[in-house]
Amino acid sequence: MAGARPVISILTDFGLADPYVGQVKGVILSYCRDAVIVDLTHEVMPFNELQAAFILRVSAPYMPPATIHLCVVDPGVGTGRRGIILETTRGDVFVGPDTGFMAPAAEILGVSAAYEIDESRLPPRDVETFHARDVFAHVVGRLARGEKPSSLGKRVESYTVMRLPEPIIEGDSAEATIMHVDRFGNLVTNLRPAQLSLELGSEAFVSIPGREIRCRYVKSYGFVEAGQLLLTVGGWGYLELSVNRGNAAEILGLKPGDRLRISKLG
Amino acid sequence: MAGARPVISILTDFGLADPYVGQVKGVILSYCRDAVIVDLTHEVMPFNELQAAFILRVSAPYMPPATIHLCVVDPGVGTGRRGIILETTRGDVFVGPDTGFMAPAAEILGVSAAYEIDESRLPPRDVETFHARDVFAHVVGRLARGEKPSSLGKRVESYTVMRLPEPIIEGDSAEATIMHVDRFGNLVTNLRPAQLSLELGSEAFVSIPGREIRCRYVKSYGFVEAGQLLLTVGGWGYLELSVNRGNAAEILGLKPGDRLRISKLG
Amino acid sequence: MAGARPVISILTDFGLADPYVGQVKGVILSYCRDAVIVDLTHEVMPFNELQAAFILRVSAPYMPPATIHLCVVDPGVGTGRRGIILETTRGDVFVGPDTGFMAPAAEILGVSAAYEIDESRLPPRDVETFHARDVFAHVVGRLARGEKPSSLGKRVESYTVMRLPEPIIEGDSAEATIMHVDRFGNLVTNLRPAQLSLELGSEAFVSIPGREIRCRYVKSYGFVEAGQLLLTVGGWGYLELSVNRGNAAEILGLKPGDRLRISKLG
Repeated sequence: MAGARPVISILTDFGLADPYVGQVKGVILSYCRDAVIVDLTHEVMPFNELQAAFILRVSAPYMPPATIHLCVVDPGVGTGRRGIILETTRGDVFVGPDTGFMAPAAEILGVSAAYEIDESRLPPRDVETFHARDVFAHVVGRLARGEKPSSLGKRVESYTVMRLPEPIIEGDSAEATIMHVDRFGNLVTNLRPAQLSLELGSEAFVSIPGREIRCRYVKSYGFVEAGQLLLTVGGWGYLELSVNRGNAAEILGLKPGDRLRISKLG
Repeated sequence: MAGARPVISILTDFGLADPYVGQVKGVILSYCRDAVIVDLTHEVMPFNELQAAFILRVSAPYMPPATIHLCVVDPGVGTGRRGIILETTRGDVFVGPDTGFMAPAAEILGVSAAYEIDESRLPPRDVETFHARDVFAHVVGRLARGEKPSSLGKRVESYTVMRLPEPIIEGDSAEATIMHVDRFGNLVTNLRPAQLSLELGSEAFVSIPGREIRCRYVKSYGFVEAGQLLLTVGGWGYLELSVNRGNAAEILGLKPGDRLRISKLG
Repeated sequence: MAGARPVISILTDFGLADPYVGQVKGVILSYCRDAVIVDLTHEVMPFNELQAAFILRVSAPYMPPATIHLCVVDPGVGTGRRGIILETTRGDVFVGPDTGFMAPAAEILGVSAAYEIDESRLPPRDVETFHARDVFAHVVGRLARGEKPSSLGKRVESYTVMRLPEPIIEGDSAEATIMHVDRFGNLVTNLRPAQLSLELGSEAFVSIPGREIRCRYVKSYGFVEAGQLLLTVGGWGYLELSVNRGNAAEILGLKPGDRLRISKLG
């Protein structure tokens, strides 16, 4: 890996209309022009740390080993909450506020150490409302050019962990939570296929408030007719309720946080 | 070109809110950190292969020679449709589903060979709903680090081709289709300026359902008053119906797929 | 700096749905694959040169020294307005139309020379509606691979300057303009904190049409209760009127260009 370009993945709730993400990248590149920066997403709903945690946990394993993850959804910016660096066994690091949403992703990769960011080792700043640029981007820039986390703060024994909601399994039935609605209207749940071993091609019942749906569990969207509801395993690795060439979220009026019950049939 | 960084251009209908594009890039970078990745667009309308074909055909010539184009608008993901690699005479490759929308772009650059992607040469996968990440990104990553298309599948004699609608020319008049509406509301047609040799500064008639418009054909938007309709050659290389400092699509209520008749004024 | 990868920052009003930005990057990379391209923003409101000027002035100092800024908000594309290169004392260059909106940013960094782009030194073109791709991207590509501005045009003594609105200070009170509303609904003014030396923790009056608001001036959003209005210094370096974990623009019905009066209390 010696000499390889560092990969930096950024997740925020900043959107792309404002110059915030661009300024953050400017600061990082001031330290290391060889960095390869990937935008994971900047459209986390404002302040929605749960959504950030879910996206990050699902996505982090697809980044190359030793990726530096800059993660900023930070409603408490400038208040007492500290900044943290989580280091993983395969060499990834997560940099952001110690509010818990980075932990599920870091723990999947295996946390090997945590460091509290020592702001006194960073350039002074006038403004306390934009730590992504004025604190975390400096940390990421220095890590990218080869500094160790220990040069940026002291090692700590604990860090904050946010727990993601788990489905409730009862025999051949599960109560799941909708974690995400994607651009296509797919309703991504927190239910893993192994937790309710549906057979490919079989039918299932899906109960949502005021409605009971019968649909097939299939390998991909195109195995039912256009416009039909279906269950499949989406790119997230979880069961999702979808409509082939249609928008399930619009058709069913569901959104993140809503619950549904999925039952094996027969 | 030896040693030059490979350029990868990505076009999808994934949007940027979901982490899909970021995950695809993560997989590519796992193979080749030297790749330069350009987002052509991720806002093709969901499942709109015709729009993808048009954007790709117009844009591909502006990418550097030997660009690797990853193109995924894929409503049939996980079903029987195969994956294809189209190689062009100037060294570009197009990677995506063999559903035809990549072909017009590849044929402009000159297709020299086609390969059917052999998924058995790629890592196994649990999920069949996200081939952009789990099939095509692996192919692109391996091409980026120098492998030949022939190492990823067998050469085939034919591939699917989508035909884009052509205008109908009748003397000094043409019936054109609106192919795209851009952010500014410009109505991009499929009519090339040479097909209806208007003279710069002259007037033309434009017929849309329920309305006949008389407007000038000019070199650029600013050659008529603000708020006035005009015809010009847009960045797409086609005639477009526009409003100087205004939004023609909103003013006229037109959208992609709508037709209009453009006539030289006698 | 010898051998360092050139950093290019792009600001436009093109949006990301159309392939315009991707085509511009394709042309730049055709000259220099080692360039690191940062998107500052592409969502300047169509034709809004004032917004572009403000974003650019605030953001340019966060880019690394010697950044090449490609800036295109260009309602007069293809008409008589010329293209300009502004060179700064720390080696940055700004490339775009000579309509004034780049000047405030360039002047903060210190303009050392200006060059009128000589289009005869660039490849011929068929189309006059997309100079970002067909003129400026070529200029940026050639600068990125090491050419001097003087090889792209003749030095000129003057260039167009847009003046940004300044607040009016009257003792302990100031009339400010809302320059920007960000994704979070923060109302960014043109009033610098030093121009109305509020004390952290003190209260201020904010007058908007039909309403008088009393709120605290705090170090960051989280120092008032969720849902409360506040004044703080945002990432822009200016006073902003915000709501903790809420959207001030929606709550107050304000937008860029609106004015407000901020007064010290007591």
